[in-house]
Amino acid sequence: MASKCKLTYFPVKALAEPIRWLLSYLDIEFEDYRFEREQWPSIKPSTPFGKVPVLEVDGKKLHQSVALSRYYGKKAGLAGKDEWEDLMIDIAVDTLNDFRQAIASWFYDPIDDSKLSKYEPLMKETVPYYLNKFEEHIKENGGYLANGKLSWGDIYFVAIIDYLNFMLQLDITEKHQYMTALRDKVVNIPKIKAWIAKRPETDC
Amino acid sequence: MASKCKLTYFPVKALAEPIRWLLSYLDIEFEDYRFEREQWPSIKPSTPFGKVPVLEVDGKKLHQSVALSRYYGKKAGLAGKDEWEDLMIDIAVDTLNDFRQAIASWFYDPIDDSKLSKYEPLMKETVPYYLNKFEEHIKENGGYLANGKLSWGDIYFVAIIDYLNFMLQLDITEKHQYMTALRDKVVNIPKIKAWIAKRPETDC
Repeated sequence: MASKCKLTYFPVKALAEPIRWLLSYLDIEFEDYRFEREQWPSIKPSTPFGKVPVLEVDGKKLHQSVALSRYYGKKAGLAGKDEWEDLMIDIAVDTLNDFRQAIASWFYDPIDDSKLSKYEPLMKETVPYYLNKFEEHIKENGGYLANGKLSWGDIYFVAIIDYLNFMLQLDITEKHQYMTALRDKVVNIPKIKAWIAKRPETDC
Repeated sequence: MASKCKLTYFPVKALAEPIRWLLSYLDIEFEDYRFEREQWPSIKPSTPFGKVPVLEVDGKKLHQSVALSRYYGKKAGLAGKDEWEDLMIDIAVDTLNDFRQAIASWFYDPIDDSKLSKYEPLMKETVPYYLNKFEEHIKENGGYLANGKLSWGDIYFVAIIDYLNFMLQLDITEKHQYMTALRDKVVNIPKIKAWIAKRPETDC
């Protein structure tokens, strides 16, 4: 746990931010290596499966932001108390990722016609559907994504809100009081608050 | 564990099959409810987040095939021996899902031009890239996806091979001896073999 690790990502929050928050929460020192977009072709071949974020720990290169968040979440005491509670967290996080991927499938679509055709169903159906469901879900779960208490799933969720907002060009927490309250709780956790105060300013 | 559960899905293997294999492995009796595609609009609103498979356990509706596979994998003694080993399994499974989603993003693309434009990069770059990486990875991991031993990750992987093959119209294990050997090991696990022998015949 004490060895210095290196987190490699684009110069944005996005999918690396949950890992940065959890490492900060755990007081694990890490090199926050942000490369410029033009460096990506030269970095890509050195990654395990052509994707970032990559976290190097003791010379081993680890990828997959959700898997890493779950791992550090357990170390932080932010997993469930049993297998059932872990399942509830995992379901919430994978559902959040379905939502992110639905947005990304539009946002990164390189074909204009295709991208255009996705916009209306995304904004009129998918986004309100997920946001209302999440809001209701957080309300039913005592203000959290799962089990009525803080978990690494909440940290994952709140850490990628800026990224989702950037893609959608709206504030997803607006008009969603339970989501807003959850965000406020997480960003005010002292270690996370300290990270946010010192991190580089980026759009997403 | 003894209560009867109900698995709701389209009349195919695809994303429900890993759950069916793990429930079979665990000797958990389940109703394998397969609805016809025209029933989907009437079933969708009753699902937690508009997706299937959904597994009903004690009246609670659970979704997310990976989360459910991890949960039943733990119950089956097919998780890691510690957090690190669990991380290795989770990384492999999420990477497999990146691969599946890259295929699905082409396969389910409703816009002809867009779908056509994805075909060549998918078949010439993405598919060989992932298959070679997986083959090498399985070789390095003693014939398994992680930790040199059978895990729920291997069951997840082998259970969705037919679905990947159906979308790609090729046999992904062909010319990949370690992948083939892993598939053969998993499909010959007695409880899984028995399930395969009695399941409905479907293309994917």
